[in-house]
Amino acid sequence: MTDRKSHWGWGWESKQRDAKARAQLGQQVGMMLGIEARPPAEPVPLDAIELPASRLDLAGAPACVSAEHEARVRHTYGRNYVDIVRGMRGDFAAAPDAVATPATDEELESVLAWAEGTEAKVIPWGGGTSVVGGVEGPRETVRLALDLRAMNRLLELDETSLHARIQGGASGPELERQLAEHGLTLRFYPQSFEFATLGGWIATRAGGHFATLHTHIDELTASVRALTPRGWWESWRLPGSGAGPSPDRLLLGSEGTLGVITDAWMRVRRRPRFRATASVHFQEFEAAVAATRELAQSGLHPSNCRLLDRREAAINFVAQDGTSVLIVAFESAHHPLQPWMERALAITAEHGGETRTGPTYREGADKNESGGAAGSWKAAFVDAPYLLNDLATVGVLVDTFETACTWSGFEALHADVVRSVRGALKEHCGGGSVSCRFTHVYPDGPAPYYTFVGGAREGAEAEQWMAVRQAAGDALARHRATITHHHAVGRVHRPWYDRQRPAPFAAALRAAKRELDPGGMMNPGVLVDP
Amino acid sequence: MTDRKSHWGWGWESKQRDAKARAQLGQQVGMMLGIEARPPAEPVPLDAIELPASRLDLAGAPACVSAEHEARVRHTYGRNYVDIVRGMRGDFAAAPDAVATPATDEELESVLAWAEGTEAKVIPWGGGTSVVGGVEGPRETVRLALDLRAMNRLLELDETSLHARIQGGASGPELERQLAEHGLTLRFYPQSFEFATLGGWIATRAGGHFATLHTHIDELTASVRALTPRGWWESWRLPGSGAGPSPDRLLLGSEGTLGVITDAWMRVRRRPRFRATASVHFQEFEAAVAATRELAQSGLHPSNCRLLDRREAAINFVAQDGTSVLIVAFESAHHPLQPWMERALAITAEHGGETRTGPTYREGADKNESGGAAGSWKAAFVDAPYLLNDLATVGVLVDTFETACTWSGFEALHADVVRSVRGALKEHCGGGSVSCRFTHVYPDGPAPYYTFVGGAREGAEAEQWMAVRQAAGDALARHRATITHHHAVGRVHRPWYDRQRPAPFAAALRAAKRELDPGGMMNPGVLVDP
Repeated sequence: MTDRKSHWGWGWESKQRDAKARAQLGQQVGMMLGIEARPPAEPVPLDAIELPASRLDLAGAPACVSAEHEARVRHTYGRNYVDIVRGMRGDFAAAPDAVATPATDEELESVLAWAEGTEAKVIPWGGGTSVVGGVEGPRETVRLALDLRAMNRLLELDETSLHARIQGGASGPELERQLAEHGLTLRFYPQSFEFATLGGWIATRAGGHFATLHTHIDELTASVRALTPRGWWESWRLPGSGAGPSPDRLLLGSEGTLGVITDAWMRVRRRPRFRATASVHFQEFEAAVAATRELAQSGLHPSNCRLLDRREAAINFVAQDGTSVLIVAFESAHHPLQPWMERALAITAEHGGETRTGPTYREGADKNESGGAAGSWKAAFVDAPYLLNDLATVGVLVDTFETACTWSGFEALHADVVRSVRGALKEHCGGGSVSCRFTHVYPDGPAPYYTFVGGAREGAEAEQWMAVRQAAGDALARHRATITHHHAVGRVHRPWYDRQRPAPFAAALRAAKRELDPGGMMNPGVLVDP
Repeated sequence: MTDRKSHWGWGWESKQRDAKARAQLGQQVGMMLGIEARPPAEPVPLDAIELPASRLDLAGAPACVSAEHEARVRHTYGRNYVDIVRGMRGDFAAAPDAVATPATDEELESVLAWAEGTEAKVIPWGGGTSVVGGVEGPRETVRLALDLRAMNRLLELDETSLHARIQGGASGPELERQLAEHGLTLRFYPQSFEFATLGGWIATRAGGHFATLHTHIDELTASVRALTPRGWWESWRLPGSGAGPSPDRLLLGSEGTLGVITDAWMRVRRRPRFRATASVHFQEFEAAVAATRELAQSGLHPSNCRLLDRREAAINFVAQDGTSVLIVAFESAHHPLQPWMERALAITAEHGGETRTGPTYREGADKNESGGAAGSWKAAFVDAPYLLNDLATVGVLVDTFETACTWSGFEALHADVVRSVRGALKEHCGGGSVSCRFTHVYPDGPAPYYTFVGGAREGAEAEQWMAVRQAAGDALARHRATITHHHAVGRVHRPWYDRQRPAPFAAALRAAKRELDPGGMMNPGVLVDP
């Protein structure tokens, strides 16, 4: 039996809870938050969805361009809460007029050349996992979704230099499967891993597995190849360079506005042979933050260093006793990790942390298993987006936002964010909850990641959600904390992004876009206005 | 007695060997290379230098702008071999028409505003240590050298986040002295450390102390403030961000073409308390390369991992027995380093390396002392540019170039570089020598650094030098190795840089420059043509 991807929510259809389980879930969450859950709604089936007529004349279009119903539905929305609510209700008014699925460089060239002769704007699709409206173009414009998932191969391998040239349309599992045949791995596991693509990660500066050092896809990228309306952009693959501003760093984060990423030489590694894991519980969040800071500044470079506040620990089934939990892990393809872990746990102990699971040391087989808090966390991490689907059907509003700030600025920022978001939840959602974890940490600051939950009013979800996001974004901006550490800008974060970036940089980026995309064809409205 | 900076060569006047010592040096080197040294020349004294008349009318200029003789002489050239030869001969025909030395943001604003109303092009000066013609503007254009060294203060400190806001004109010793008062350090020690400035390092993506991980100033930069002709560029200081392409990464490496860097929040660290050093000798360079590669891919992240081939080891007084030497060091403000060093030396032993000095472990006082090969290396490293001065006076041509490449590409690249440069030395310099070291290493490749020495013919030095550089640059380009890992592009590397960068990126950079510097005032000819 083959599973099907949901046309309206996150991931696989088979992972959705049945109506009874969702009703129970709604009651549980409702009681916890003091809000009223609704009876489970059933999503509008794919076949029953009505689309506006396509405005694109496909006579003369490359064969890989289609205006077929299912393709258009499946390329309409990303996967934030509002996307999922609209999908569930069968509201696909924002559907693109057509979808292109080139399988080769040449087909891609023909698609862009054809699109330039039409009025269509081109929206690079990636895996469609954007939570910031990055793949939803302005509906008044004629749009072509550009899906590169037929270009998903490992093209070349350099095992000596640990470089792999991989096509932009490869999803996480696809690229890992091909690398695994050679004992290699990218070890890049964002929550979007199952569905997002390498090209999407590069275009959005996605954040991955490593909590320190190589936190973003940026650091794993040795060179990029992209097709712009002005032709091919191809950098040399280099371990390092000081020749002018980095070309790759202008494509990293360009979010489809300058061109579409077709393939990249990525820095891969041998599969880890040694692993060390521990989870440390703290009675006070402040002590946990102080311990995490010292660990982040120690030069030990743990592969995992995720701090969950007591709410996050509770909702992810990691701790139910009100403690904050720091999950620490090291991994190596090269050497046993006892000295690293021992030093890390000496730091956490000094700050009053109690090591409850581990330290566990494993060697050899890569079974991806982990016990204790780390195991519970990993399961919850993968399932979280599915929970969002289920909660949306019972009238619970849930979403996340994330940032990065200095260590010195965290306390005031955190207090302001929690106060502002709670206030917005109370005003607009009848109450709710906000929780925090650190997904990544740096010597100079953490990347706090917030989850908020509240009650939804049918038909008002988009306004409610925006009111909370507005409160969150304004709080971040007040403290000069980035509007996103790894979820990208898209259309949702645009107002705060405009405040954050230096004005001359915005002018430079606009000028660069005008030069490479004179028709303003590529993902209009993202990052810069045409 | 206060020392004086040389007006023609590298560094302090007091460090120049006297004529007798230079004659001996010339004979030694001449015998080694089979070339004829000349009797020591004496540099033309400062007062005897004749300058072309300034073409700038300073009526109405800010008070910090001067066309005084000494200031113009001292802001004429960088410090590569040809710069030093011209300086020694008293050829300062390329002198700027005036020099600006603003001490505040406001003075800087007034300088740029005034310059915009003149025909002058503005050449940001940094510390004047460029070896790639980065500070020598086209002599047919009226030029103003912009020297920020009066802006050299530590402005703000955030000890919790390990951030320091430092002005762009601070030299290495100046910024380290101010940080040391707080027990902090940037630990950025390029060969230019004594004289170069923070702003210059950022503008040129300089390479520093750390042989792995934080190799370039890029990684140590949390945010940048710069004045462009279109106004202030100021990024938020963030430990990480995924909000669009990184603004800082467009300024890093911009080489004064988009604006002038006034200050930056830098990632500083506590002074190291623990140090571990060893030097490992290899009979064969190939085995040393293989060991270095494994160490670079091990995840141990040594702070030093410099590999000297047998010629480098010999001329730097590290080994005279034909062995190649790998200098390995670890440092930490946090923990003892035995486990790291033991694993590193296990790797080198597997490749046949013989540990001759160390492992030495030190704790506590930061005396910057190191024994054995590492100590010899450090002394030679600091003195090398002075040697260039002295050799230039006795007719020995000597200079360096550097690159980065993949591990898989190194062997063929190295063979081609050595063959090409030796060929050029033979054809143009009556013979000579080329040696190689790795200054920085990455999991995916090394940064090889080449030194070449040959015989100079009086009056023909520039042509000889360019012939060798041409052979080197072409060899690098044939192998798609970067034209520079950390010496910047300037005017010397421009032809190869133009081949290296993606064409759409060049177009984007030109467009960005036109937008921010519509008059083409800032460092014309560097990176992009107006």
